[in-house]
Amino acid sequence: MCDDEQRPSVPEGGAVERPTGLDNLATPVVVVDALRLRRNLRAMQSKADSRGVALRPHIKTHKSVEIARKQLDLGAIGITASKPDEARCFAQAGISSITLAYPVIDARRLDALLEATRGGDLRTIADSDEGVSALAQAAAAHSRRLPVYMKVDVGLGRVGVVPGSRRALDLARRIASTNQLEFRGLLSHAGHAYAAVDAEGVRDVARQERTLLGDLARRLHDQAGLAVPELSVGCTPTALACYDELDGLSEMRPGNYAFLDRMAIAQGLASWDDLALYVLATVVSVNDHYAIVDAGSKVLSSDGGPHGSDRLRGFGAAILPNVSDSAPSGEPLLVEKLSEEHGFVALPRHGTSPQSDRGTIRLGDRLRLYPNHSCPVVNLADRVALLDDRSGSVRWLGIDARGQVQ
Amino acid sequence: MCDDEQRPSVPEGGAVERPTGLDNLATPVVVVDALRLRRNLRAMQSKADSRGVALRPHIKTHKSVEIARKQLDLGAIGITASKPDEARCFAQAGISSITLAYPVIDARRLDALLEATRGGDLRTIADSDEGVSALAQAAAAHSRRLPVYMKVDVGLGRVGVVPGSRRALDLARRIASTNQLEFRGLLSHAGHAYAAVDAEGVRDVARQERTLLGDLARRLHDQAGLAVPELSVGCTPTALACYDELDGLSEMRPGNYAFLDRMAIAQGLASWDDLALYVLATVVSVNDHYAIVDAGSKVLSSDGGPHGSDRLRGFGAAILPNVSDSAPSGEPLLVEKLSEEHGFVALPRHGTSPQSDRGTIRLGDRLRLYPNHSCPVVNLADRVALLDDRSGSVRWLGIDARGQVQ
Repeated sequence: MCDDEQRPSVPEGGAVERPTGLDNLATPVVVVDALRLRRNLRAMQSKADSRGVALRPHIKTHKSVEIARKQLDLGAIGITASKPDEARCFAQAGISSITLAYPVIDARRLDALLEATRGGDLRTIADSDEGVSALAQAAAAHSRRLPVYMKVDVGLGRVGVVPGSRRALDLARRIASTNQLEFRGLLSHAGHAYAAVDAEGVRDVARQERTLLGDLARRLHDQAGLAVPELSVGCTPTALACYDELDGLSEMRPGNYAFLDRMAIAQGLASWDDLALYVLATVVSVNDHYAIVDAGSKVLSSDGGPHGSDRLRGFGAAILPNVSDSAPSGEPLLVEKLSEEHGFVALPRHGTSPQSDRGTIRLGDRLRLYPNHSCPVVNLADRVALLDDRSGSVRWLGIDARGQVQ
Repeated sequence: MCDDEQRPSVPEGGAVERPTGLDNLATPVVVVDALRLRRNLRAMQSKADSRGVALRPHIKTHKSVEIARKQLDLGAIGITASKPDEARCFAQAGISSITLAYPVIDARRLDALLEATRGGDLRTIADSDEGVSALAQAAAAHSRRLPVYMKVDVGLGRVGVVPGSRRALDLARRIASTNQLEFRGLLSHAGHAYAAVDAEGVRDVARQERTLLGDLARRLHDQAGLAVPELSVGCTPTALACYDELDGLSEMRPGNYAFLDRMAIAQGLASWDDLALYVLATVVSVNDHYAIVDAGSKVLSSDGGPHGSDRLRGFGAAILPNVSDSAPSGEPLLVEKLSEEHGFVALPRHGTSPQSDRGTIRLGDRLRLYPNHSCPVVNLADRVALLDDRSGSVRWLGIDARGQVQ
């Protein structure tokens, strides 16, 4: 990697007073609003507490040890991670209760993580015989007993056993009867909730998920004599939209709720002033149709939304410097196209938008770009600028597990 | 960042014999085929040499000092970079001739780069009065004279002056009359060539580009008395498709040609065995419709193609382990959807594809995924595995300028 010492920067971990806010930071820069982040974390913990459901947030959204610690301080019982290397970052930082929600099928892939979680509480999932064998082999090699959830496909069509299938019974039996493993229960991700158009649609998905898991748990009990200690679900839309639908579940594992994004707005699950992450970008050129900003797909990502969703038009919403994003009057401008290092912000035709007309966007203006999906934006950044709204101070927050995709 | 020491890895820079190829590397991993890379680099240099056009490759595709050095060794006259921090990485590694092809409008943004290129040959671009002022201020602060191209919009509608406009004359005059700057000529990027459906369509774009630049150069000479030392163009499709269309140009700045991708195939500008970059991924789950692989949008990116193109279906092409990608019989499988860490490879219905049927994709299979657009894939990786096809050895190649987007 190149030498970053000459880069003008805010000292790592050090707070620097910036009475003018972020004005002196070079763009593009990913900004996290500390106040909104804290509010989002607290709201989800309160929701979980009020429904008697444990919270085990997915850290793939922020990939930050500091934010994970905040979540644990607020009452989360542990964290969820995507991949062994991602999980290992957090284990090495002293976070001991981790669910690796990925179907590992090669025992060697768990070696480093099992080493890093020695004495801790690592759980994982399986949806195949090969996976169960790999987990048993890894656990044996490290003289551990590994808690394992059976992953259930509740409608996303990705990973997991079909809940009504014969295979679901067989695989649960196999997990439960494997010496090195402990059958911990059922785990699902209702990612198809992102396809719902509103909160009620999301709740339909959640009700169906709970029914599928509950029915399977009963079947495992009645037909296989298995106790199902936990039902674990995890998905930000369902976590935000649901109340009664959470009753009877053991834990939930939302991730995106920490930052949220345009998708949450589109689903009616958040308002603009809930969005805790944006990209600050500068207008570097203006033509007849677009204000061109210095953030492209290498900063914003090209995501249309989670799980390859293409529901959202464009690649982000742009808010002008003089417009409050707490209550934008009129529609934000659209980031209509992206090159790798340029964003094309569509200029409104005169008189069509109360928020601005072409005359108000000028070279050098700094726009806040709210992404479609905040998770891949964080994954592109080595660090983000954490902004304290009240003091106006910013400091860098390292993205500890950036790029840990193995 | 987390401690990577426990990660099983090939030593940085060290070659490790792998008689079974990449079989022992953990997935997902970005693989660069050294033989194809070398062939692509050589072919473009030969093309440039044979047309008497200098080659100044854009390093935003590979972001690797080692590959840039190969390009220079083969005859490139310098490199092109996107952003000041990206350029600085290469300057610090001793590469002295760099064109920063981005419209800087804030003098402070050039400080570190001007420092790093002291005594070297840094060139840049402008398309606005504010840009010219910023460049002049930066050059003065470093007691330098800075060569500047006027950026011309030849049809992409992004950055650059409109070639037939009065403003083009005024801005060129302004650059030429600014003491700290040297008017170096005209520079364009015909990124709209990616919208062409075939080589002939790409050549149409190139012909139009050359005409626009030539006409503007004549107008600058005739109406403003300005010499236009250079006409610089840069875009992989035009560089690949064109021959006579390059005559009269000074230099070209393609980047993507080093690796190529599905887009080049779709435009008829490359064949499968030209593609020098793929993601090696493992099938971790199989359901009725998809083989689920361990590479998602955090590895492959969600790019539909350059400049927000949405011409390509899906997010990549998947080649089975037992199928040669030099001459795949039948269509490759499609990576139809992406989650952050999962790819959905669509299973063919029985008998519809000569390449495979459902029975042939098994848990644990390693698929080669060819991305739509290779540039954002490299930008997601800290390092790539460089594979020598002849010896079967692999070694890590660091992505030196990863994430340098400022």
